[in-house]
Amino acid sequence: MKKSHGSLKKQAATYSIGLDYGSESARALLVDTRTGEELTTCVFPYPSGTRGVILSKDPNLARQNPADYLAAAEFLLKRTLAMAKKGIRGFSPTQIVGIGVDTTGSTPLPVDASGRALGMNPKFAKDPAAMAWLWKDHTSTGEAREITEKAREHRPQMIARCGNTYSSEWFFSKILHCARTNPKVFNAAHLWVECADWIPAVLTGTEHPDTLRIGVCAAGHKAMFAHDWQGYPDAEFLSMLEPGLGELRSRLRDRALTIDQSVGGLSAEWAKRTGLAAGIPVAAGAFDAHLGAIGSGIEPGTLVKIMGTSTCDIAVAPHAGRFPEIPGLCGIVDGSVTPKMLGFEAGQSAVGDIFNWFVDVMKPKGGTHEILSKEAAKIPPGASGLLALDWNNGNRTVLVDQLLTGLLIGQTLYTTPAEVYRALIEATAFGALTIINRFEEFGVKIDRIVNSGGIAEKNPLVMQIYADVTSRTMFVSRSGQTCALGAAIAGAVVGGAHASVAAAQRAMTGVKPRPFKPNPKAHAIYAELYPLYRALHDAFGTATASTLNHVMKRLIEIRTRTRV
Amino acid sequence: MKKSHGSLKKQAATYSIGLDYGSESARALLVDTRTGEELTTCVFPYPSGTRGVILSKDPNLARQNPADYLAAAEFLLKRTLAMAKKGIRGFSPTQIVGIGVDTTGSTPLPVDASGRALGMNPKFAKDPAAMAWLWKDHTSTGEAREITEKAREHRPQMIARCGNTYSSEWFFSKILHCARTNPKVFNAAHLWVECADWIPAVLTGTEHPDTLRIGVCAAGHKAMFAHDWQGYPDAEFLSMLEPGLGELRSRLRDRALTIDQSVGGLSAEWAKRTGLAAGIPVAAGAFDAHLGAIGSGIEPGTLVKIMGTSTCDIAVAPHAGRFPEIPGLCGIVDGSVTPKMLGFEAGQSAVGDIFNWFVDVMKPKGGTHEILSKEAAKIPPGASGLLALDWNNGNRTVLVDQLLTGLLIGQTLYTTPAEVYRALIEATAFGALTIINRFEEFGVKIDRIVNSGGIAEKNPLVMQIYADVTSRTMFVSRSGQTCALGAAIAGAVVGGAHASVAAAQRAMTGVKPRPFKPNPKAHAIYAELYPLYRALHDAFGTATASTLNHVMKRLIEIRTRTRV
Repeated sequence: MKKSHGSLKKQAATYSIGLDYGSESARALLVDTRTGEELTTCVFPYPSGTRGVILSKDPNLARQNPADYLAAAEFLLKRTLAMAKKGIRGFSPTQIVGIGVDTTGSTPLPVDASGRALGMNPKFAKDPAAMAWLWKDHTSTGEAREITEKAREHRPQMIARCGNTYSSEWFFSKILHCARTNPKVFNAAHLWVECADWIPAVLTGTEHPDTLRIGVCAAGHKAMFAHDWQGYPDAEFLSMLEPGLGELRSRLRDRALTIDQSVGGLSAEWAKRTGLAAGIPVAAGAFDAHLGAIGSGIEPGTLVKIMGTSTCDIAVAPHAGRFPEIPGLCGIVDGSVTPKMLGFEAGQSAVGDIFNWFVDVMKPKGGTHEILSKEAAKIPPGASGLLALDWNNGNRTVLVDQLLTGLLIGQTLYTTPAEVYRALIEATAFGALTIINRFEEFGVKIDRIVNSGGIAEKNPLVMQIYADVTSRTMFVSRSGQTCALGAAIAGAVVGGAHASVAAAQRAMTGVKPRPFKPNPKAHAIYAELYPLYRALHDAFGTATASTLNHVMKRLIEIRTRTRV
Repeated sequence: MKKSHGSLKKQAATYSIGLDYGSESARALLVDTRTGEELTTCVFPYPSGTRGVILSKDPNLARQNPADYLAAAEFLLKRTLAMAKKGIRGFSPTQIVGIGVDTTGSTPLPVDASGRALGMNPKFAKDPAAMAWLWKDHTSTGEAREITEKAREHRPQMIARCGNTYSSEWFFSKILHCARTNPKVFNAAHLWVECADWIPAVLTGTEHPDTLRIGVCAAGHKAMFAHDWQGYPDAEFLSMLEPGLGELRSRLRDRALTIDQSVGGLSAEWAKRTGLAAGIPVAAGAFDAHLGAIGSGIEPGTLVKIMGTSTCDIAVAPHAGRFPEIPGLCGIVDGSVTPKMLGFEAGQSAVGDIFNWFVDVMKPKGGTHEILSKEAAKIPPGASGLLALDWNNGNRTVLVDQLLTGLLIGQTLYTTPAEVYRALIEATAFGALTIINRFEEFGVKIDRIVNSGGIAEKNPLVMQIYADVTSRTMFVSRSGQTCALGAAIAGAVVGGAHASVAAAQRAMTGVKPRPFKPNPKAHAIYAELYPLYRALHDAFGTATASTLNHVMKRLIEIRTRTRV
């Protein structure tokens, strides 16, 4: 599909910028819209809090300062421009045709009647509730349970699209928690806006609630937004949770955009602040994983796995007239990834985090990731006699149950740390296979898997085990910054460099030359082990299939009661 | 019961010697028969093999040189005499009234027609099959399976008394393996004698097959010997296994002695070799754990736990006219511990070995037993959220299944090594409780628990957790050498210092002053956790109760097939 750089030299180069807002820092990527070539990259660590996160005595609390987002935008756009001027021969700022933005999420922040972040108002500068509620803020578990229960009873069709469980990490859980615990901030908030929507709005001067335009990705995946029921859940339902939430409903938008749509042009103010040309179109924002999937070349039939501490698994499929119901998937949203297609989000609550736990907390002597991977690579599949469940941080897909825990079986008096390390990798691979199978059982065919993120880049053993377990070739995304690249692709499309996201992907994305191919002998062993994994998975993970689910649940209950 | 040393000063002191043959060394203990005071102790490491054990390329092979046993006896008896002469004022060798012997087992050795160990014949000096087959020799697993199957079919009453499973560690498995794999040694062997019987026989010059007298402990627990079916299994049954085994039957003894019976007096030759008086009665030998129970003051209602790398649990009960059938117990033998009482043997395949595995093989950084115990002591029961099964080396009682493996459940991303260490201790305590419950369910009341061995001596955290889990006071045996003390008690009884084993125990045994008492609050939590342990125990340990037993079995099967 992709032409070589050489043949394009004669075409006029245009560039787009991807702004990628992570948990600790933001980065900017300047990309050649013809080839996807990554020309400049720079990073801005958030100055507030501890490594960018505002913490408190409550270990569940994690907030961010919205001022950091704007400081990041200013620094990164200026720096990108400076680097481009210095590094690209004959560069002109007018060659930058568009900007895209991806962020973490759900990371909502309260804004006032003019769309200004409350956290930037000196009156609220010291109140964490006025800040952006970072995705991993877990203060709102009680509210999440309440929303889940009420939605299952009164709006089952809405909760069904997000795996039948509303998370404490999501939009309404956080707003409801604020309403209950900090009425001062709640009452001062005219609106709550996802970080993914607020940044593009500020850059384009459209943050006023009357002009605000939002993306469908955040709203659909985290706030039960869908155009087939007129946007967000209705005021009647929200009022059942809290009258103030019902009132808020009228101020929320009823339409949401896909990433090929612009929310506006770069404002004169931001043009001045950054040196970029005013009017450069800014795409509707979306979440990092979803734009990471774009940057990894997602299309129907491709599963993109963003593999880091946890995993996001993204797929897309053309509309078939109605929404498929795939039990256990945490989100099915029209247009959340590729415009005009259904976007599916699944994931594993912990992958790299499980390996990190074993190395950093269990601390086997001399056991770095490198050494353990090297030793684990020598162990043939099945030879350790070990089998693990990958639930140290709960199970997101397909069980949607945070109150599940890890399990390791098969230990003898000779079991080594490298064997356990390998079993943990295998467990996450079995978890990945369970997700793939669930997609296919419900008609979403997966015939290509592209991996992206730290683990995909750095640990070939993990990739090989995934290939062997799933009996599928594991491709690794060519870009090491797929989220920022995906944002830049959105920028390229709204900037007119490509007619569609799909066309932009064909030109701008790719995979690394050497994929990980399944070894049939290894797969034959894993084909024997997987039913055993499933036996444990079903026995401990589902309340109906067996009597052992209560063991994990009771242990957590006792732990909660007895922990000092 | 026990009078103070002071009031006994006027009585004429008599002494007895306990010879304790372990896996790596033998020791002798000289004891005051009036008080149990331990006057001298000395150790003799076996000179042959690796730390006393003859090994080969086959990791299952473990043998001992019978010449080492005699070298040990000579050294230890001479040394004891020398130490007594030097250390005890007014000591005279005639004050030594009896000798008792305990050994590991089942540790059978082939002897020629004169009772001489084949391994001491220069012709066989290099053949491991001619040596003593140490208890932990596992070369005979195939034969054990065969004996189990044939006995279940043809002699169910016999196999029922040893937990319905005949072990690869036991007498006939080893002899049968020799018959199949080394006919030269098998044909040269006139008889096979347990080490526990052979040493007393040699000391008394009664080792000739016509004069040999054997103890009921080894024969009953390891060779399906019982007086109610005329001793060993009949020739018809043994011939089904192997004709040579049927022929051997006629040369095996039909009667067996209890430890209060002497096999003879110290021979003139051994009197000369050691300096002891000829004719000193030597008690019938028995296994270390059984004489350890004697040395710990066992009586009806007392459970003695010999706690080391694995655990032996010993109980006794008066005859009730018939043998109770306690499913899963590995042995019920008339007179194997206390004469004229039923002796019960149960056990856990690994206890200290599991803790050692975690420290020495999993090697958590900085995690010695001391440090982990100290940290684990701070964790309240239930607070880790972890639960483990104590099956890293299989399960001896009550499941009698070597092909079970470890299990750990409840891990999060924060689970620490100290939490796992504590969960492993708790798992062994739950295993211990399961054995106690099994005894009581079948009418053997346990109202006192005395612990002995390395772990009981050294790890107060383990003892406290056992007390809290079982809600029973954990006593620790006063003697740190209960096996040798038990042997000395047998020596004291055959030497006439006491009228019975029970009388000798009353005078010569005791417990340490501060027992470990259960903490009711901790027990309340463990009372909640134990049903969860049982749920896992039954689901994974029994083939009928659930569908998960196959998971462990299949993992072992795959492991065996794939291990390089």
